Formats: sequence, C-alpha cells, structure tokens
Amino acid sequence: MQRNRFLPDMLSTLFDRSRVKYKDNDPRDTAQLCYALLSEEGEVSGQKLAEVILDRYRASSDEDKLAFFQFMNEELDIDASKLAELATEYADNPSAEAYASVANESAPKRRQLLRRLNQPSGATSDLVNMRVDLLRLMKDAPELARSDLDFTLLLRSWFNRGFLVLKQIDWDAPASLLDKIVAYEAVHEIDDLDDLRRRLSPPDRRCFAFFHPAMPDEPLIFVEVALTATIPGSVDALLSEDRAPLLAADARAAVFYSISNCQSGLKGISFGNLLIKQVAKELALEFPQLNDFVTLSPIPRMNTWLLDQTSDPVIGHVAAAVLAGEAPPEDVRAMAARYLVEAKRGNGTPVDPVARFHLGNGAEVHAVHANADSSDNGRYQSGGAMVNYLYDLSVVEKNHEDFVLNAKVATSKSIKALVKAPFKTKPEALAS
Amino acid sequence: MQRNRFLPDMLSTLFDRSRVKYKDNDPRDTAQLCYALLSEEGEVSGQKLAEVILDRYRASSDEDKLAFFQFMNEELDIDASKLAELATEYADNPSAEAYASVANESAPKRRQLLRRLNQPSGATSDLVNMRVDLLRLMKDAPELARSDLDFTLLLRSWFNRGFLVLKQIDWDAPASLLDKIVAYEAVHEIDDLDDLRRRLSPPDRRCFAFFHPAMPDEPLIFVEVALTATIPGSVDALLSEDRAPLLAADARAAVFYSISNCQSGLKGISFGNLLIKQVAKELALEFPQLNDFVTLSPIPRMNTWLLDQTSDPVIGHVAAAVLAGEAPPEDVRAMAARYLVEAKRGNGTPVDPVARFHLGNGAEVHAVHANADSSDNGRYQSGGAMVNYLYDLSVVEKNHEDFVLNAKVATSKSIKALVKAPFKTKPEALAS
Amino acid sequence: MQRNRFLPDMLSTLFDRSRVKYKDNDPRDTAQLCYALLSEEGEVSGQKLAEVILDRYRASSDEDKLAFFQFMNEELDIDASKLAELATEYADNPSAEAYASVANESAPKRRQLLRRLNQPSGATSDLVNMRVDLLRLMKDAPELARSDLDFTLLLRSWFNRGFLVLKQIDWDAPASLLDKIVAYEAVHEIDDLDDLRRRLSPPDRRCFAFFHPAMPDEPLIFVEVALTATIPGSVDALLSEDRAPLLAADARAAVFYSISNCQSGLKGISFGNLLIKQVAKELALEFPQLNDFVTLSPIPRMNTWLLDQTSDPVIGHVAAAVLAGEAPPEDVRAMAARYLVEAKRGNGTPVDPVARFHLGNGAEVHAVHANADSSDNGRYQSGGAMVNYLYDLSVVEKNHEDFVLNAKVATSKSIKALVKAPFKTKPEALAS
Amino acid sequence: MQRNRFLPDMLSTLFDRSRVKYKDNDPRDTAQLCYALLSEEGEVSGQKLAEVILDRYRASSDEDKLAFFQFMNEELDIDASKLAELATEYADNPSAEAYASVANESAPKRRQLLRRLNQPSGATSDLVNMRVDLLRLMKDAPELARSDLDFTLLLRSWFNRGFLVLKQIDWDAPASLLDKIVAYEAVHEIDDLDDLRRRLSPPDRRCFAFFHPAMPDEPLIFVEVALTATIPGSVDALLSEDRAPLLAADARAAVFYSISNCQSGLKGISFGNLLIKQVAKELALEFPQLNDFVTLSPIPRMNTWLLDQTSDPVIGHVAAAVLAGEAPPEDVRAMAARYLVEAKRGNGTPVDPVARFHLGNGAEVHAVHANADSSDNGRYQSGGAMVNYLYDLSVVEKNHEDFVLNAKVATSKSIKALVKAPFKTKPEALAS
Repeated sequence: MQRNRFLPDMLSTLFDRSRVKYKDNDPRDTAQLCYALLSEEGEVSGQKLAEVILDRYRASSDEDKLAFFQFMNEELDIDASKLAELATEYADNPSAEAYASVANESAPKRRQLLRRLNQPSGATSDLVNMRVDLLRLMKDAPELARSDLDFTLLLRSWFNRGFLVLKQIDWDAPASLLDKIVAYEAVHEIDDLDDLRRRLSPPDRRCFAFFHPAMPDEPLIFVEVALTATIPGSVDALLSEDRAPLLAADARAAVFYSISNCQSGLKGISFGNLLIKQVAKELALEFPQLNDFVTLSPIPRMNTWLLDQTSDPVIGHVAAAVLAGEAPPEDVRAMAARYLVEAKRGNGTPVDPVARFHLGNGAEVHAVHANADSSDNGRYQSGGAMVNYLYDLSVVEKNHEDFVLNAKVATSKSIKALVKAPFKTKPEALAS
Repeated sequence: MQRNRFLPDMLSTLFDRSRVKYKDNDPRDTAQLCYALLSEEGEVSGQKLAEVILDRYRASSDEDKLAFFQFMNEELDIDASKLAELATEYADNPSAEAYASVANESAPKRRQLLRRLNQPSGATSDLVNMRVDLLRLMKDAPELARSDLDFTLLLRSWFNRGFLVLKQIDWDAPASLLDKIVAYEAVHEIDDLDDLRRRLSPPDRRCFAFFHPAMPDEPLIFVEVALTATIPGSVDALLSEDRAPLLAADARAAVFYSISNCQSGLKGISFGNLLIKQVAKELALEFPQLNDFVTLSPIPRMNTWLLDQTSDPVIGHVAAAVLAGEAPPEDVRAMAARYLVEAKRGNGTPVDPVARFHLGNGAEVHAVHANADSSDNGRYQSGGAMVNYLYDLSVVEKNHEDFVLNAKVATSKSIKALVKAPFKTKPEALAS
Repeated sequence: MQRNRFLPDMLSTLFDRSRVKYKDNDPRDTAQLCYALLSEEGEVSGQKLAEVILDRYRASSDEDKLAFFQFMNEELDIDASKLAELATEYADNPSAEAYASVANESAPKRRQLLRRLNQPSGATSDLVNMRVDLLRLMKDAPELARSDLDFTLLLRSWFNRGFLVLKQIDWDAPASLLDKIVAYEAVHEIDDLDDLRRRLSPPDRRCFAFFHPAMPDEPLIFVEVALTATIPGSVDALLSEDRAPLLAADARAAVFYSISNCQSGLKGISFGNLLIKQVAKELALEFPQLNDFVTLSPIPRMNTWLLDQTSDPVIGHVAAAVLAGEAPPEDVRAMAARYLVEAKRGNGTPVDPVARFHLGNGAEVHAVHANADSSDNGRYQSGGAMVNYLYDLSVVEKNHEDFVLNAKVATSKSIKALVKAPFKTKPEALAS
Repeated sequence: MQRNRFLPDMLSTLFDRSRVKYKDNDPRDTAQLCYALLSEEGEVSGQKLAEVILDRYRASSDEDKLAFFQFMNEELDIDASKLAELATEYADNPSAEAYASVANESAPKRRQLLRRLNQPSGATSDLVNMRVDLLRLMKDAPELARSDLDFTLLLRSWFNRGFLVLKQIDWDAPASLLDKIVAYEAVHEIDDLDDLRRRLSPPDRRCFAFFHPAMPDEPLIFVEVALTATIPGSVDALLSEDRAPLLAADARAAVFYSISNCQSGLKGISFGNLLIKQVAKELALEFPQLNDFVTLSPIPRMNTWLLDQTSDPVIGHVAAAVLAGEAPPEDVRAMAARYLVEAKRGNGTPVDPVARFHLGNGAEVHAVHANADSSDNGRYQSGGAMVNYLYDLSVVEKNHEDFVLNAKVATSKSIKALVKAPFKTKPEALAS
C-alpha cells in the first residue's frame, strides 16, 4: 500500500514537452543569432533563438564547431581591463552597486549565452554534448580552455549534488536504458544484454545510477555491486556464469566492483564519491547485517610501474618475475601493495588513478589479490592483480583530510605488513 | 493507451529521499561549520555539514540570522584588490591559467557556500526561504544587497527556464497543493477550497503553474485562465457564482485574469513572461479555434495617479469625478487609458507595475472597462476599472523591443482614440 | 530511493482509454440490440452495441428503465423445464457434455447480456449504477429480485477480494476524490473540504479506501481512523476542532470511528470485514507499538428499543429516564450494554445492525460510553451513547464462528459486569 | 504537459501488496482446508486459508495435483437431482426464492472454492497456472472436463473484455517483460533480446499486448505490427536485419505479422479478435494515412493437405510439384488459395486454424504469396507460402456473420481468380 504520488509524478512533464520544431529561415548567421539571444530579443524569443542555434550547431562540421567555440572564446570573453578597474573601485568603496558591477563584468557573455541556450527541451543534453566536442577540439586549440572553464562552472552549478537523483537499475529497467549501461561500462566489459542480465538479475547483485531531472534518460554515473559472504579476492568468481546466488540473509559485504562515468561532457564534475556513500546508505538500510563496504578494483598502471622497477638493484628481479608471470602470488601481492602505497607522482599523490579516487574519498587500501582478474585487460595492466579499497564510514573523513592535506595513504595492517615483507623470488632465479 | 513512463517516473526519487536526520552534536559554531563546509572536510562530509547548518539556521532568531548574513557578507566576500591584480594580469596575458584565476577570485566564497548547502533533501527550498529572510532583514541592513546579488545569481542559474516544469492544476490536483493556490492568489482573493472549485472545476476554466524538480510541492507562479466567447470587460461576470459554463467549442478567447508569484524568495527571477507564452501554446493546441489571448488585469495605481491630477486645470475635474464615483463610464475609461498610456516614471516607463510587466512582455493595451471589478480592492485602486492586455504572438517581439529600447507603449486603435476623446464631465458640474 | 514502477503504472491505461463515441443511428429497439449483442453480431461488434445500449439506458425514463428490467427478467430468464430435464440427465450420466449443458442452461441470458455490456470504458460503473435503479424500482416490482440476483452474482465475481485495491486517502489526494469522501460519509457528517481537512491532515489521523481497477475514481468503502493514546470514550473529543495532534510515538490504539459504504449498487457485496483487517495490518506495520484495534461506533436503534422497554415492569423506569436524558451515565451505559447484548431479532442475532456487522467480523462488545456523541443524530438514536468494538486478531475467527453458528455475542468482562449491574435510577424517582 | 494522474496510479497498490507469508502449521489436510474455506471460517480467515492451500498446491506432485482436481470434480460437484427438483419447482412457480435456490444449486462448490482462493496477492496468476496443470492432467482423466468448465466460466468472467488493458510494448519496456515476449513468441521465433530489438526499436515497428490488472507483469496476448508502404508479400523482407526503416509519413499499411497467446491457462478465452481491432484503432489514430490493415500469416496445414491431394487425378501432379519445390510460384499461390478457400472440415469450416481465426473475426483472404517465409518452419508447413488476411472494418461484421452462420469464406477478387486459374505445371512433367 502506498501513499499518493501526485507531486513527484508531475515532474515527468519536463520531459514530455515535445520539442516544438521551428523552421530555421533566419537570414542571420549564428554569431548574430547569439548576439540576438543575449539582447532584448532573447528575452522574448529566447526559446526559438536557442533552438535554431542548437539545431545549427548539431548539424555543423568540426571546422564550424571550432569556429563557434573560437567566437565564444574571443568575442564573448570578459573585458579584463574594465573588470580590473571596477574591482579597484569596489576595493576602495565596497558598495552594493560596485559589487554588482564587478559581478556583472566578471561573468563573460559566453556564460550567459550558454544559460540562455538551455531553454528548449533537451537543451541540457545538447550542451553536455557540446562540451564533448569542445574537449576534443581543445586538444589542438588549447586557448579554448577558457571557454571550457565556463562550461565547467555552469555545469557544476546545474549538476549540483542537490539535484541528482539516485535510482536503482535492475532487470525491470527499460531495455533502452540497459543498452546504455552496456555501452558505458568502463571497467569490466559487458558483451550484450544477456551478459548484463547476469549482473542485474540475481538477487545478490545491485546496480545504482545518478540521473539529472533535465536528462532523465541518460545515466550520469553508475556502480555495480555484489553482495557477498566475505570480502572477495577475485572478480572472476564474482562474474562467473555458473555461480549460485547468495541468500540475502547471508550477505556480509557489499562489493563495489565497477564504477563508470557515463558523460564525458561532465568531465571534472565528480559524482563518484557521493554515489558510493549514498549507495552504501541504501544498502545498509536494506541489509542491516552488512559489515563491510569495499571495492574490488583494478590496478591500472601497476605493470607500467613494474617495468620502471626492473632496473632497480633491490626489487628489479621481483618486478621482472611478476611481469613475466613467474613470481609466486605472495610476491605479486607484495609488489601490488608497494606500488599502491609507495609509487607517487610529483605532488606526492599515488601514481594510480583509481587509488587517488578512492583514497581521496577517504577509503583505505585494504587488501590485494593475485590472479583476481583473468581478462585480457586485467592481465595487461596488472598481471591479474586487484585491490580492495575499504570504506569505513567512521574514518573516511579523517582519511580524506590526511590524504588531501598530507598525501597520506590509509592502509590496513595487512597491507602495511605486506609492504615490508621479504620477497620469495630470489635474484639468482632470474640471473640464470 | 500510453507508452512506457519509466524514465520520468524515476525522477520522483529525488523527493522520496527521506531526509536522514543527523544529530547535531558538533561543538563548532556555525561560522566554523561554514568554513568546514568550504574546506576539504566539506568534500567528504558536505551533506551532513550542510544539514546541520540549515537546521541551525531554521531554528535561529532574526538576530542570529542577521549575524549569519553579515558573516557571509563580510567574511565570505571577494578579495577585490587581488581580483583587480589578476584581471590586470589577464588583460596583459589572456592565458587559460590567468582566466581561471580571475574566475576563481571573482566568485565569492559565500556563493560556493550556498552551492554546498544545497545537498540535503529539501535544501533548495530552505535556501529560497533563507532569501525571504534576507530580503526582509536587508531593509535595515542595505549592505546585505551584496549577498543578495549572489543569492540571485545562484537561484537564477538553478531556476533556469530549461528546468521549469509546466503543470496544469485542476480539481484532480492534491488538496494540499490547492491549499497553496488559495494562499498564494494575489490578484482576486480566494476564500477557501469551495471558492477555488469554481475557478478550477468548470470546463471553461484552466489553471497552470510552473514547478521546479527540486521543490516539487511548491508552485513558483500560476495563472488562472477563463475561456470565453468574447474578450470580457468585467471580472465580476467571470467569477460569478451562478454562471453557466461555456461549451469548449464556443471558446474564442483565453483570458489570463490572474497571475500570482508564489515564492517571494525568488524575487527578481522572472517566470511570468515564459508562463503566459507557454500556456498560450498549450491552449492553442487544445483549442485551435481560439483567436485572442488577453489578460483581464487590475490597474493598481490608477487612483493614486488620479489624486495627483485633481489639481490639473484641464482634467482635474474629471479626475475628481472619477474618484468620487460620479463620472460616466466613458470618462472612467478615458482616464484609465490616459493613465496607462501617459503616466510615466522618471525613466519613461509607465507608472503602473502591471502595465510594465505585460508591455515588457510585448503585449498591447487593448481595451479598458469601467465597473469591471466590484471587490473592495478593485474599487480602492481603480474605482473598479480594469484593462485587457492583448498578446498577439506575431508582434510581441517587436512590441517588446520598442518598449525596452524606446519605452514605447503599444496600444490598440480604440485605446488611441480613447486617449484623445473629449470628456463628458463638465468642469461646472463639480464647481457647484 | 525506489525501484522501477513500469508494470503497475502500465495499468493506468485501462482508464485512459477515452470512450470513443459511436453515433446511435441504429433503427432497432433496445431489446433487439440486446439480442444482437447476445448473438454472433455481438462477437464482432460487441463494444459498439454495448455502448449504444448503455447510452440509451442512461438517457431513459424510469418507465423505460422498468420496461428494460422486465424484459431482462422475463425474456432473458432460464428455461427451467429444460434445465430440470438436463439436470436429470446429468444425474443419470455425469458426463462432461451433460455437465456443460446444465451449466449453460442454468446461466440465464441476462447474465450473459450484463457481461457483454461491460465492454466500453466506464461500463462497470454504468452497470453498478444500473443496479441502483433496479433496487429502487424493485420496491414496486418485487419479481425483479430474480434479475437482481444475477446482478449480485456477477458483481460479486467481478469485485472479488483479490481485485480490490487498498489506498490511503490523505490530504495529498485529489480534491475531486475528497469531494466524494465528503458526500459518501455516512456516520459522522462532514460539512465540506475544510471540515474534512481536520480528519485527514493531522498526523494522528488516517483514512483508507478500497477501489476497483475498473472504477478507479470511485471509492467502494472507506474507513476513518484516529490514533490515540487510550481507547476513547467520545467521538466529540476525537473530532474536536482545537485538539492537539498526538505524537505518532505515543499512539497505542487505532480507532475505526467511521466506516461508510459508497456504492449502493454494490449492496450485498461486503467489503467492510476485509477493509478493517487489511487496514489493521497496514497500521500495525507502520506503528508497531499499537496495542488495540477498536471501533468507536454509533448504537443506531438503541432509543427505539428503549421506547419498547418503557412498559417493562423491571427496567421500564430506567428506559424512560435514559430517554428523557435524566438518567445518570452509569445507567445509560448499563442500558446500552443490555441493548447490545440482549436485544435480539427472531433469528437470535442482535437488533443493532452495526453490532451485527462487527460481531459478524469476530469483534467483541468492549466498552460503552454515555455522552459520547453530542450531534443531533447521536442524541436522536442513542441519547449520545457509543460503543467500542474490539478487534483482537487472535480470537476474531473463534468469535465469528460462535456468532454465526450460535449467535453468541462476544463481550468483555466489563460489559458482562455492566449487564448485570443494578441500576441507580429508582422507580420512585420517575413516579413523582 | 499532462494532467494529474492520481487515480490510475493508485491502482498500482494492487501489486505492491507484498504477500504476507503465513506459516503453514495447519494440521488439516488440503480437502479439509477447502471445506473450511467454503465455510464460515472462510469468511473471516479466507486470505490465510487460501494462501496455505495455494502454497501446498504449488509444492505438490502431479499425483497430488490430480487428486486435488479429482476431489474438486467429485466432491464439490452440483447435486443434479436436487437441481432438477428445484428447477421443476421454479418452472411451476417462478418466484424469486425459487430462482435463488436454482441459481445456488446450479453453481458447484468448486466454483466458489476457486473464487475464494483468489484472495492472496498473486492468486489470479496461481489459478491460471493451476488450469495449465489441469489441461495437462485432463488428457488422461477426461472426466475432469467438468471442473475445467468451471475454471473456464470463472476466468471468462474475470478476464472480461472490460477489464483488459492495452499496452504498447517498445524498447523502453522493462527487460524482464521483454524476456517474456521472447519466450512467448509463437509464430516467428525470436532468438534473444538483441533479435527482439529489431522488432521493437525501429520507428516503423509496433508491438501491443493485453494485460489484466491482477496479473500486471504477464502479457495475455501480443501482436507485432510492421508499418509498410504496400501490402507485403514476404516476412523475410519484413524481418531482414539490414533493411532501412520506413518514414512514418510513408506508411500506408499496418501488417499484423505475428500474434501470440501467452497464457495456456486461458485457453478458450479469446482475446485476439479484440486485440486486432483495438490496435487497428490505435494505429489509425496515430497514422491517419493508413489505408490497409492486413495480416501476413502462416498457412500451417497446407502441406499436410497437399499430401492428401497428390493422389487426386486432376490436381495431384500440381500438389506433388509444390511439395517437391518444383512448381512455379503461380502454382504455389494457386494451390495455397485453393487450400484456404476449399479445404473444409466436417462442419464446413476451413481446415486451416489460422484461417478460421481471421475469417471468424470478419477478415477476408486477400492475397497469397510464394517464397514468403524461408524459415525451416515456414518451408515445412507451407513450402514458404504465406497469406494476407485483410481487415476491412466496414465489412468485418457482415463477413463474420456469413462465416459463422453459413461458413462462407470471404475472399478478394484476385483470390477468386486464383482459385479458378489453370495450372502451369503439366501432368507429364512429373510423369517422366
């Protein structure tokens, strides 16, 4: 039995609004239309102007897109000299008027243009896709990074955490949405819908995604979860075709074994941290018996690092053995632990991007496993080794601060021991 | 028969999310919590911090609220000198890094604070209500206008037109929502639900509202519409208890007889223009036989203006007669027309705020009527006179530009004639 | 967070189906159309024929309706002689064919007609309303009871318990539905929507109704519930305008203080028993701390019975004093208890219809109260006395059987004591 | 923009009701529980009793199921002698009481049992599945046909046309539902979801199904439709993987190329006729430019019939040539036409079951095609020949009656000509 659902349902209208198609017989070029949209004409006819501009944009070539971005970048930039002047005035006399002038002058016209483009139905999605183009074209036109910053600021405001919608994705979800999950999966490839069924349908599997009200049929990010009796050491077992599902009552750990960002146009606007914590909360409500929330994560750059170590006089022979697939599992694990804990970038943070993500969220490096991912990609990047990051909600905040402020890597006792453990592989072994 | 509705419905989850209540046992004061929310701690524990701050805010006195706003206004302002410096650097060398520095420095920390406060369920509504407080407290603390500008900029971004949801409100709407319509009605007072039934239930009546996905049970603005056979000259007839409803097939005009903004916390973020045009589109789809889209509007400051005119040697006696209720209807209409067309503010725009709104949308002053609103308020402000503004979609854009750029008031031929017509009331008539 | 809702939502299509209107230019009279609907023509064009017949029926006079029912009653009856013959054959030789013949012959054509009429959208509601007419017209045409039996059998099959939908009605329900609750309330009158708000809106009030998928905007029966700290002795206090709502955590009793059947066309098809038990289950889930599920019920025929007792040599003077409003509360309660427990009809069941309903459901007479209902109706029927029936789920089944098989009235100890208690009112007291 | 959807949505509660699980510790055997359910105990504890009986049934062996059906068949039958007696009484004196006695006695207790079993959530589905068992077990126990008749009568009442819900199935439907479409497809096999995508996703394809509110996740019957520019002569082209979809504006024909019943437990309760007509109406609304509604149907028993004809002195050699795949297409078409028009059963109706279905709905045999279905099944049953049945709504009623009353097969002119056309295959050709 449920209560009325009038109000939420009402919102569906946002997406019903069939896009009324205007004929584009406007003789003005796109730049002129952009100026019109920014002018008084835009106040009254903004929806129509926005639609024509977006339609033209979608139909245009890369060359024309580049020209459009360069127009935004140069013509619709701030007037920095004037801003400097106004800021100085405000510093001298912090009046409301002076502040308004600063605020106004510091927001470039292109930001206003993007805001006004967001009027037709579906425009938010168009703008996210526009940024996909921008990021691509920016590679050869680095000056466009200024425009990209405005995209980022605007999208960050619109995709504010308070507007995200958490949604469970199961086998009752629309096939059209599931097609997207198959396409967006970035960690452990999914072949097709029948393959996806194995990850969604069993009672000990979960999948959750964030959505935004203005892009209701596009997931922003999703995570796949396995409920297990113990913290698992291999994704092969998790994804095995012929395993028997666990009874819900026996679940003790929730394993986040795959997290995929879906919208490259939202690069730099991070949802993963929030997703993991929100999903952990949901699961804790549904399964109060859960003890551990962990990931089972890849170790993407381990082999690259190992290669660099092969010339190291102390551990070079072990690195080589691991790379050759000839090291005992203990040594694979020890090298994985060292890589995660000790391999750092210039700024002191770990080389491994997945490690940076989870450590940045406040997780700890909990356990490493050899022979955990036998896929081609798994073998290639880490010789099949994987890692569990543990989310202990009572310490994530402290871990996060230690990591951000001091680049401190949180580790379990067993990882600490592993880093210091002597290797089994003997130098001679390779010399021969 | 309908198609699947999976995706829209999914969004309802935004509002289902029951607000998990954190206990507020944080020893820090609110300013400290705000700094924490802005810091690394906010990255990980933002939802909890935001909730505690919002809870404390709601429970605080006006004095404390004022202190909170002053904290934001002073402590979380921009560093204008630094901004001036960075802007000058950017003017000299427009690199992406320099631009990012300017953009970063020009956004005050309070704006970031507000953005991060928008994490718990219901926070958007809290922030809109916070601005209601700010606008009230600002009267005695005008310097807070700087903070208000940041509220405005943020809310304008969040309540972007592309995120608004148009919804028809009829007698099948939830009683809890209808209670709000009764409360928010600002033009022609509604006594109670039974009174509202007369405006929603008949087949020749419509009501539409805009909503925002993050405040699904709060209308932002609504308009009440009557379908009529001809352009009506009196709201008394429209709202009469014992009228017989018109057959839909006989409708030729859609009369927008009441528009009410609901959220004073969204002051300055205009939805009315868009609402009228969107509703006109919806109605044109449902009733292709409609010829005219007009308002039947009050003339709020007519009597104030008439009072000023009583000493005028030429029209003073007519103004007095109209105020005394002794003028013939022709003269009431003539004075109403003159007021709307000729009474201007310093900047050349009409004195009448309702006129400014509709003329600014591109409507024309179409017709005026005496004895059209016999309510106390109607008699008090305009002696019962009312006006139709006509929305002719083929010329609204031109009218809008003429009005904004040249303060030109669009008028129908009959209004033009009325402004020039001689009065019936003779000067002697009053002298005696 | 919620799971997908595709499938349930899909059912809404049942009610979207706009009734396609056929023009009725059929030259045949209604009886001929009924035969056509029963014939091969009905197989293909049933929906159209059914719609024409139902349209004609709705537009017809009582006289024509009576003629229609008489046509059904006489022309579409069973052929009893043939049925007798076939039944005899089956008794001799119980073959499947013989059984089919009996089944076929025993179902009168009018039942098939009603079934085939149920094709257009909204037809189920039309048929329920048709029975309302039948029950009315039957008063002067008792032979129509045969047709009414077929209506009853068919509606009982369609409104099978497995098809009923329990729905909570709160202040978020559509105003159009709440109008019906106001209209259908049969126990404690509701003035208007503002009056209803007091029964739905407070957090310690609940209302539940049964619906049928084919009549989604028509409640079948509803019950109003008050959550209270103790079993209440007065409906006046429950419905008081200025009471403060109870905190949910303090609720110990759920009081069913009003049950109303909504569809007189479903007379004889009982939902009340199921409703009370289902609602009790729902409430027990939501408020595990609830101890008691009781009614606070009127005692409709108590005063009629008292009037009959005034000539009784033993209790006559007490009955007279109670009727005169001059008896002490103890004696009012004692007489109410005697009435409920001892006043019986010819078949041994209680005179009181409300008592028969709750006792038939397995409830017990738990407590009686004087001055509990000060409304006109309450005073008129029982001098303001009311009764609590207690639903103790552990004994309802036993109580029900004792009541149905042996007409045994289940009572609490205090009621038992009350029945035997001596009266305070002295015979002399009245003699003077 | 849409209107409120409160009421329909409300019905979803029917399926939300999580089945509360009772522990079955009842010492009585199932027959005793059935008698209890039919007794007074059933009035109060019906839901629990029904659930225990259904749970036991589901868990029981075929042997036990057979015993259960035999119990229903024998113990819960009518008392035919008594019925004969009562019917005779009613024939003599048609009083309402006598009629009630007849009605009561003529409804066997097993029908009441089934009705009372339909109380727990999901019970309707259980009862439909129970009939699947019955139909299977009946093959060796033909006397159970009597019980099956009661199942049929009850299910026909519950699955009355007025309660069916038409639903479009597209690629936004839940994957779990699409799995069922794959499984239930009975005409042109679907390999998996990726194969189904080709039938649902393109804009010129449609699929519709009927559902019942009490079995919301189970389609009852579905039809697949192709929108085409002309009436197609081959299903191979329709289902081709690499075809380009038609523009909606170019669609002139709607082709029902596959109709599948999903619930064998609803055998004998026909939905196909209604489905085709309702879908035709929906499509005509969406695509007013459609001229023709046709099927593209298999000819299931054509080859069996051809085999019988091989010894025919006149057409035997043609039949043999067709069977051998050596006849020219003209002769294949001519033989198909003859088979459909002339091959009759004892009662004068066509041998072909698909022909009987569509002709019974009022369609005509419109055109036949050779080499239209190259699947194994298509080749096996008809040498790849297929047929279009045309639904011309202006004559379906007349055609239906002619078919039912006179077994007249409606045919197009071209089919009439084809039946009379001389064959190209010469007798000699085969003799050699």
